[in-house]
Amino acid sequence: MKVLVIGASGTIGREVVEALAIKHEIVKAGKGSGDVQIDITSPASIRSALDSIGKVDAIICATGDVAFNTFANLSREEWDVGINSRLMGQVNLTQIGTDYLNDGGSITLTSGIIADYPIAYGASAATLNGAIQHFAKAVANELPRGIRINVVSPSVVTESLGTYGDYFPGFHAIDARDVAKSYIRSALGIETGQTFKAFAGN
Amino acid sequence: MKVLVIGASGTIGREVVEALAIKHEIVKAGKGSGDVQIDITSPASIRSALDSIGKVDAIICATGDVAFNTFANLSREEWDVGINSRLMGQVNLTQIGTDYLNDGGSITLTSGIIADYPIAYGASAATLNGAIQHFAKAVANELPRGIRINVVSPSVVTESLGTYGDYFPGFHAIDARDVAKSYIRSALGIETGQTFKAFAGN
Ligand SMILES: NC(=O)c1ccc[n+]([C@@H]2O[C@H](COP(=O)([O-])OP(=O)(O)OC[C@H]3O[C@@H](n4cnc5c(N)ncnc54)[C@H](OP(=O)(O)O)[C@@H]3O)[C@@H](O)[C@H]2O)c1
Ligand SMILES: NC(=O)c1ccc[n+]([C@@H]2O[C@H](COP(=O)([O-])OP(=O)(O)OC[C@H]3O[C@@H](n4cnc5c(N)ncnc54)[C@H](OP(=O)(O)O)[C@@H]3O)[C@@H](O)[C@H]2O)c1
Repeated sequence: MKVLVIGASGTIGREVVEALAIKHEIVKAGKGSGDVQIDITSPASIRSALDSIGKVDAIICATGDVAFNTFANLSREEWDVGINSRLMGQVNLTQIGTDYLNDGGSITLTSGIIADYPIAYGASAATLNGAIQHFAKAVANELPRGIRINVVSPSVVTESLGTYGDYFPGFHAIDARDVAKSYIRSALGIETGQTFKAFAGN
Repeated sequence: MKVLVIGASGTIGREVVEALAIKHEIVKAGKGSGDVQIDITSPASIRSALDSIGKVDAIICATGDVAFNTFANLSREEWDVGINSRLMGQVNLTQIGTDYLNDGGSITLTSGIIADYPIAYGASAATLNGAIQHFAKAVANELPRGIRINVVSPSVVTESLGTYGDYFPGFHAIDARDVAKSYIRSALGIETGQTFKAFAGN
């Protein structure tokens, strides 16, 4: 299988690449790093990156930004960070990416545990993570040629605790290597329209 | 109680008004109709309408637009209809409306059954309905002074079958009068962060 991993240099993406590279051909993509540069917030960038890569069997999106602030102080500009990246970045990647997927291919998107378990400063993340999960559930019924779509919703990642740990008090962290399993299950399995919750006991 | 009903002239809003008006003071609002004009897609309009009304005990939003199209053909302009109305219209109403709610007041927003049960042309509606449900769940933990927030998710309404019925083949419709009960439960009850699903057996 030929797999495009967007966010390949990231904490999660790197483990997805490592696990898949054993048996599959990986195209690593990032905003500034990787084999191919892609900015998911720009439909033109998605299209030109995919043009340069050609057909693939799986697209994995292990990236997507969202702004964090108290609800009272969240500005429209901050909401738009997530709307244009976490939400429409992944929606556009799905819409455009479908044309570059072989029959029976798959798309795997990313949300996060905040959709289910609110945290301080997380109202926009909760909203847009939820949006992307409902998007995948709905659009799975419309994708052509046996193309599947799923979402991975990770808890806070162990390797990210230094950066985000204080925002997830008492949450059970998950190792990036274990989060990667959900992306692999999505790309190599048969399920569609699902959100794989890479967390337990929260 | 003083209750602001936005979308008061609508199929659903009208039944909400009728049920609440028996015991409560209602301010009816709509884009062009009602006691007060308000356009939920404009924060300035929300603010000036609320300024003219003053403090209320409950805000009910029985409106919110979203565009319908096949996923392959949904344009960003069409996504933006829902992003600016169903999603950010209701988010902005919550953020601004909080300042105009008495202690212990409530906000009730609207999503729809498409969040849970996909229909043709419904990918954007499913996504943004899901977003608003996750929004309410998260933001319920941040609202001050005992203010509550819930969402009502109606099935296709019996009175709307002439307009939308063909898009909901085999769905159980619900009478607008029964949908109104969920808004009343939200406004007069004690629950918060919930989505009241005004449908069953689908
Ligand atoms: N880490 C966690 O605890 C955690 C928990 C739940 C959810 N998530 C979500 O999982 C995703 C990955 O998280 P992470 O911690 O692995 O991220 P990360 O370490 O910050 O890495 C981000 C990756 O995304 C790429 N990227 C950044 N902006 C991009 C854009 N506009 N278009 C395409 N690629 C872009 C980066 O490429 P360059 O290096 O080239 O810039 C990098 O490869 C994010 O959506 C995050 O919100 C993370
Ligand atoms: N009817 C259904 O089967 C059904 C099912 C599930 C969900 N829903 C959702 O429930 C909500 C109400 O549906 P409905 O069928 O009762 O609607 P409707 O009959 O079309 O009435 C719409 C109401 O909203 C007002 N309105 C329109 N645009 C507005 C804006 N930008 N700002 C403020 N008010 C605005 C209208 O006011 P004016 O008359 O002054 O323009 C009218 O009072 C909608 O969000 C709809 O998507 C409906």
